[in-house]
Amino acid sequence: MSATTAAADRTVCRAVPEALPVLGRDVTVPLVTGGEVTYAALDYAASAPALQRVWDDVAAYAPYYGSVHRGAGYLSQLSTDLFENAREAVAGFLGCRPDDQVVFTRSTTDSLNLLARALPAGCRVFVFETEHHASLLPWQDADVTCLDAPRSPRQAVETLERALADRDPHGPALVCVTGASNVTGELWPVRELAAAAHAHGARIVLDAAQLAPHHPVDITGLDVDWVAFSGHKLYAPFGSGVLAGRADWLRAAEPYLAGGGASRKVTRRQDGGVDVEWHESAARHEAGSPNVIGAYSIASACKALTEAGWDALIAREEYLIAKVRAGLAAVPEVRVLSLFGDDAPRVGVISFVVEGWNSSHFAAALSAEYGIGVRDGLFCAHPLVRTLLGTGPQAQGECGAPEAAPGEKSLNAIRVSFGAGTPDEHVERFVTAVAELVRDGARWEYRTEEGRCVPVV
Amino acid sequence: MSATTAAADRTVCRAVPEALPVLGRDVTVPLVTGGEVTYAALDYAASAPALQRVWDDVAAYAPYYGSVHRGAGYLSQLSTDLFENAREAVAGFLGCRPDDQVVFTRSTTDSLNLLARALPAGCRVFVFETEHHASLLPWQDADVTCLDAPRSPRQAVETLERALADRDPHGPALVCVTGASNVTGELWPVRELAAAAHAHGARIVLDAAQLAPHHPVDITGLDVDWVAFSGHKLYAPFGSGVLAGRADWLRAAEPYLAGGGASRKVTRRQDGGVDVEWHESAARHEAGSPNVIGAYSIASACKALTEAGWDALIAREEYLIAKVRAGLAAVPEVRVLSLFGDDAPRVGVISFVVEGWNSSHFAAALSAEYGIGVRDGLFCAHPLVRTLLGTGPQAQGECGAPEAAPGEKSLNAIRVSFGAGTPDEHVERFVTAVAELVRDGARWEYRTEEGRCVPVV
Repeated sequence: MSATTAAADRTVCRAVPEALPVLGRDVTVPLVTGGEVTYAALDYAASAPALQRVWDDVAAYAPYYGSVHRGAGYLSQLSTDLFENAREAVAGFLGCRPDDQVVFTRSTTDSLNLLARALPAGCRVFVFETEHHASLLPWQDADVTCLDAPRSPRQAVETLERALADRDPHGPALVCVTGASNVTGELWPVRELAAAAHAHGARIVLDAAQLAPHHPVDITGLDVDWVAFSGHKLYAPFGSGVLAGRADWLRAAEPYLAGGGASRKVTRRQDGGVDVEWHESAARHEAGSPNVIGAYSIASACKALTEAGWDALIAREEYLIAKVRAGLAAVPEVRVLSLFGDDAPRVGVISFVVEGWNSSHFAAALSAEYGIGVRDGLFCAHPLVRTLLGTGPQAQGECGAPEAAPGEKSLNAIRVSFGAGTPDEHVERFVTAVAELVRDGARWEYRTEEGRCVPVV
Repeated sequence: MSATTAAADRTVCRAVPEALPVLGRDVTVPLVTGGEVTYAALDYAASAPALQRVWDDVAAYAPYYGSVHRGAGYLSQLSTDLFENAREAVAGFLGCRPDDQVVFTRSTTDSLNLLARALPAGCRVFVFETEHHASLLPWQDADVTCLDAPRSPRQAVETLERALADRDPHGPALVCVTGASNVTGELWPVRELAAAAHAHGARIVLDAAQLAPHHPVDITGLDVDWVAFSGHKLYAPFGSGVLAGRADWLRAAEPYLAGGGASRKVTRRQDGGVDVEWHESAARHEAGSPNVIGAYSIASACKALTEAGWDALIAREEYLIAKVRAGLAAVPEVRVLSLFGDDAPRVGVISFVVEGWNSSHFAAALSAEYGIGVRDGLFCAHPLVRTLLGTGPQAQGECGAPEAAPGEKSLNAIRVSFGAGTPDEHVERFVTAVAELVRDGARWEYRTEEGRCVPVV
């Protein structure tokens, strides 16, 4: 980094807030080349570290843990209140409408599978091929229209409008769309897509897994019908997710899980069979003992992010994004993957390939030689990554697994992602490492072992 | 307590091990009558406190949390290893056969719903009406035979054998049975039921939610096909559960959740549709980012219980059970609910009613005046509790909610449950409190508020 750049960086740095404290910020990892460094967690798009505040809240609550909804004791009542207050906190975080339901699930994947089970008869689903598999695949029992990757937000809206207008019969429809791509980080025109959906008599669910950790999500302002997100990407990795939105389809659906908590009354009939009355509240889809720690941790994260202030969080993230993009742009061998072009607004999720490098090899070297954790693979968005790479459907490549030995042409990409807990040093180290690896090559030998690229030791 | 009983107790006490340290053992709660006491958590059958050891393991791991199965970084690989090692640890804990799969779910309810989605075509399901709703209700899409409550273990086996023999057509069948009742704590003759199932060409899944925290569960020794249990009843309340057992039905089934992690390869077809190759391993049913903290916490609990030793744990629990049963037997107004009679072997789960008392009122007084947390209601086993109470299907009563004002005839029961973390003092206080409440009545006024019996303040 030149002295001028460093000075400019310091100037900008003073204008943006500090990173929020996260767990693991002092963890050191060994380098294959000797010594140890603090771990640079740059795979936030898969799983973000817990906010220290979230951990502290969980740790403070843990001794008071009790059976939710099910006990007469003091701690049971406290835990029940905590769980239901978490629901309220999430509703507030998302700007829910008064009649919306907030269902605690285990992840975005689970949330969208739940919604898929709640589709009305004859409902057609519209998804872009660019979606994460969690948004792309749950609709198998419905009639799905898979839309081609758009090359601009405007084209996305036009493609959707045309598809919705052309549907035959013009029956119930659901659009499922991401708020921010888990591959390119690019923001999708959610408000415009929602308007298009509603104009054509369809509903829309927002996959906010990658959006919610980076930007405010206002279900009312965006006018989307449902929002889904995961705790583990929102600094609350305790096994919970959320589906929030319109109650009518959820109330009309069969319970997602059959069991206690979802059932209000169970009786045997004279003929030996069993009759069940199900709840109509969110509990209908939450059978089994609720994951109160998971729900509470999400509420804690919502509160922490809100209190930190979105303007400050976004300003800091923009600063980190600019740093990373400038660093990658300075290396001609690097190609950043993009659907909507350089100027598209985005969150801190950036995927790229490096000419002459196998992505798995590159990612392994970042880890082993620099203590940097990124991800390589197709990022559970196979059609999108193949479209961006220009490779055909014949191209192999599992989530995270290298498809070829080091040195061969890569069919995977590398993804770097970060967020509210990322210190400057992590992205600076990353930018330096990319430049060094491209310039000097890896300093170590690597080999493929059980589908993973690892240093030879 | 008489001086003689106290002396005898001390003698027995020296012969049994200490309670295992759990979180919350020092938590104090206010009494409505003034002052504070340490909270006596006696609702283990709903949710047990975390073992201190489990919490310590989770706390030690938390800073090292990383994206499972999905990252190239050091902490991602560490987390992936931790997750897969947890699977191995659970397989060992359950004595799994080499070909068995261990799927991490979110609870027993989730595990049984997963198995319900994996039934082969035409599979008939056999369940006793005595099951928890988690075992009773997930089979709605199948042809279910609900069996009458047996009054002895032998009758259970005979009833099942007859039903299986009589089934027409004699096609595929699954028996779902609990290992220990969540209402009476009584042990079911699992090995004999499994033998009966197999003799009649059926398979069997064991609901071990209440058994696994109290007794070793040996899937091979019991010769059951699957076992399901929950972390939150096994001192690991971090949102995970387990389904372990035969791989064939699981491999043949559609993925439980559709999404990333479960999909090996996703490609768009020429016609615009999407083709998916699904994994055949446990990952097939674990789409979305795994709850690594949940899985790790279960593995930690399995290890802690195994190291404490089942002989010692069972000896201590027998001692606590004897204390509670002796205390309840000394109060003529108390009727303990039982299917199999006084001599039936059981775990530390005991339900009862008190003549002249509304169960919700009684449970509220135990909490408010003694700091004791039990549960009142129908315990998500409505048909069983109604059978045991002798009330008809018309009797109302939600999980945990009082159905009538204090003083009216109770249609619910009270359940006290405990385990490896329970100190003597908790069950002693409980026994004393029951005797005092029956003898002297509550010292406070109570009223029903939002379906809950609460002290008037």
